Amino acid sequence: TSSGVFLLQMGWGDLGAFGEPSKETPNLDQMAAEGMLFLDFYTASPLCSPSRAALLTGRLPVRNGFYTTNGHARNAYTPQDIVGGIPDSELLLPELLKKGGYTNKIIGKWHLGHRPQFHPLKHGFDEWFGSPNCHFGPYNSTERPNIPVYRDWEMVGRYYEDFKIDLKTGEANLTQLYLQEALDFISKQQASQQPFFLYWAIDATHAPVYASKQFLGTSQRGLYGDAVREIDDSVGRILKHLQQLGISENTFVFFTSDNGAALISAPKQGGSNGPFLCGKQTTFEGGMREPAIAWWPGHIPAGGVSHQLGSVMDLFSTSLSLAGLQPPSDRQIDGIDLLPVILQGKLIDRPIFYYRGNELMAVRAGLYKAHYWTWSNSWEEHGKGIDFCPGQSVAGVTTHTQEEHTHLPLLFHLGRDPGEKYPLSFASEEYQRAVEHISGLVQQHKATLVPGQPQLNVCDQAVM
Amino acid sequence: TSSGVFLLQMGWGDLGAFGEPSKETPNLDQMAAEGMLFLDFYTASPLCSPSRAALLTGRLPVRNGFYTTNGHARNAYTPQDIVGGIPDSELLLPELLKKGGYTNKIIGKWHLGHRPQFHPLKHGFDEWFGSPNCHFGPYNSTERPNIPVYRDWEMVGRYYEDFKIDLKTGEANLTQLYLQEALDFISKQQASQQPFFLYWAIDATHAPVYASKQFLGTSQRGLYGDAVREIDDSVGRILKHLQQLGISENTFVFFTSDNGAALISAPKQGGSNGPFLCGKQTTFEGGMREPAIAWWPGHIPAGGVSHQLGSVMDLFSTSLSLAGLQPPSDRQIDGIDLLPVILQGKLIDRPIFYYRGNELMAVRAGLYKAHYWTWSNSWEEHGKGIDFCPGQSVAGVTTHTQEEHTHLPLLFHLGRDPGEKYPLSFASEEYQRAVEHISGLVQQHKATLVPGQPQLNVCDQAVM
Repeated sequence: TSSGVFLLQMGWGDLGAFGEPSKETPNLDQMAAEGMLFLDFYTASPLCSPSRAALLTGRLPVRNGFYTTNGHARNAYTPQDIVGGIPDSELLLPELLKKGGYTNKIIGKWHLGHRPQFHPLKHGFDEWFGSPNCHFGPYNSTERPNIPVYRDWEMVGRYYEDFKIDLKTGEANLTQLYLQEALDFISKQQASQQPFFLYWAIDATHAPVYASKQFLGTSQRGLYGDAVREIDDSVGRILKHLQQLGISENTFVFFTSDNGAALISAPKQGGSNGPFLCGKQTTFEGGMREPAIAWWPGHIPAGGVSHQLGSVMDLFSTSLSLAGLQPPSDRQIDGIDLLPVILQGKLIDRPIFYYRGNELMAVRAGLYKAHYWTWSNSWEEHGKGIDFCPGQSVAGVTTHTQEEHTHLPLLFHLGRDPGEKYPLSFASEEYQRAVEHISGLVQQHKATLVPGQPQLNVCDQAVM
Repeated sequence: TSSGVFLLQMGWGDLGAFGEPSKETPNLDQMAAEGMLFLDFYTASPLCSPSRAALLTGRLPVRNGFYTTNGHARNAYTPQDIVGGIPDSELLLPELLKKGGYTNKIIGKWHLGHRPQFHPLKHGFDEWFGSPNCHFGPYNSTERPNIPVYRDWEMVGRYYEDFKIDLKTGEANLTQLYLQEALDFISKQQASQQPFFLYWAIDATHAPVYASKQFLGTSQRGLYGDAVREIDDSVGRILKHLQQLGISENTFVFFTSDNGAALISAPKQGGSNGPFLCGKQTTFEGGMREPAIAWWPGHIPAGGVSHQLGSVMDLFSTSLSLAGLQPPSDRQIDGIDLLPVILQGKLIDRPIFYYRGNELMAVRAGLYKAHYWTWSNSWEEHGKGIDFCPGQSVAGVTTHTQEEHTHLPLLFHLGRDPGEKYPLSFASEEYQRAVEHISGLVQQHKATLVPGQPQLNVCDQAVM
């Protein structure tokens, strides 16, 4: 069985199926109606690089090295001058799938380091069309080059220069290029009857947001909505292509996001996290709870809904399971195989760890979530107009200083209070029972944790 | 064609189909999948009594008298000692439908006055099972009686005394009684082959929230969720009953709410307004934008979605249209006939007026909403812990003093910014174009407005 993973950068609230009031995602809504909706699904970090490293290794960023120790609870990613990247010691999903005869392709943003040793084709992918990084820019090429675009080993151009993005109009045809790549790859694999792993990780909804001409101005939601519509249309075309080639029943497809919508870019370029608190960069639900849909016609009953606590890291274990392969036994794997959940409706008891950089900020077990640390961003940043929680303010929760609660964690019941507005009373029996349980999980987690060598500590202009 | 209106007190975000993360409303979600979802549907007031008067008269509360002039922009309803009620001069939907041979029944909360002249059977209803008011209490019967429950003309008991509500456990079987009433009425009408209008306006999600024993503890969302599940189950049973009796294709059914979720009762007894700002009592989207579903198998195409700006007042005009009747021509009717929208996919250009008491606070036209006044609640109330916008705070918008913006209205684009967080720049061309248009609508509205005699100005203990 082949696997396809759509990894986007949309918020929970950006899909019609998840309550976006403009309801402009008919293809994703249809995917959900035909498949299974995961309502309690998480990314592994509120920022993109660490989430992607976690998805591909099945391991928390703090284990696979995608974090920094430069500051406490500091989010970090892979800017152009980053020295680190995905260590050779990490085993990536495509490396493992290769042993099962899979052809692996990444389309879009790699984000696991851009020095030669970190190239995706050195880590199990057979093909790549995309960039090592986001399409930030344009840059003055003398001081800082524009982000390159690769086809496999070869750099084929740079954003803004060879791959046009018009920041004024928001026009760029990149999503169409990435869509065509996916369709062609799937056709080729179907013709050769080889299983494949396709990782479609495009970046259209990341600021600066862009969309193709035919989608510009088509959304009620502005440019961001145009980009969402184009992604929705692309997902629909890819699924239809699988069906038309007659391989949809042999292809497991999963749609999710690498972090919550970036509210700092709102309203022009920012999405929606629905009823949840804050957004990207935070360990509140808005930062890490993601829209998630599993689709596999003939296997997943249509209209399914699961409350399994899931994680992007589970896509590692699940894809291996689909390939009949075992996860590596020489290291801690944080992902779980979701097939019993998807095919037999099981619920697997497991916690969700919310890390921010090197710090375990919060833990969810069942419907309870305990915050050991709270932080939105610094007063200094906030004073400059950078706001991770625009229009939202919960006293003692969305704090602008790093607040430690390790002795008396803030506890929320996410069923009654998905927006994390009403901490439970410390004196309640409910509080004591839940915190005792979660603290046990934390102890266990910390006792066995072997942090990886932090990869995101050092920048050096020389590596650009 | 018969009409059924479910009028509940749930928020936009309480339905799975509208993005509630626990997704516990399979019957309502199914109703939406089989019918048409209205995503831009409004009540006529952020409080219950005026909304209900508007639904049944097709007229804004400021016209039909369901407001107070005791204070500026003051919400008012019909407490037990209210002197006023629905004036005889108002023509109610059931009065008009009677001329079309309809039998009309109200099940649940009337809320249009409780003195004898306001009795629903004096205003067109043929049958009533329910109460004139919410199930507040219990009261010490010497000073203030408990709310009575009527079967038609006869008082058959009182809440807490004869109709038990256990505030400790939250147990009450009222929704089951109201469900059975509906099923029996529909059976009777089917047997007699007479068209009917059923107004199912139960109050289970109004604080103090209750649910029947079999639903207690079944929701992830606590007691409020239990009540929602029971309502969802009841709606499913009623729709199934129509189908089993073979009259679903002759029965137009509409589900909506009379105000946004009451966030002051959260988290234990309060619902969700999804991504919208604030809740009940306010003229922000959370106070007046409602979940809405039209269902009419064989007529409404399954899975429809409409962005028509709709109002509970439209149910007046639409139900008349279904009965082949004309709305009265001697008065201003604010409702419009939604059948062209529902059956032919038309979009009718019309504004939405957001009143709070006697004041026009805001107006929506297309995707633009202009606030002429902003107010959440007073600092005094807020200091007592009464918060209409818990966890939300938008500078200059969720104000605790009444702020006038009539010269420079605050303008929001509800497509890009459904949460009303980012007022448009006064200097922008977009602002000037939109405000000019809306101000024209306001002028026109105010120039022709004939306010009704305010019914909610006077309370007198003697009327209890």
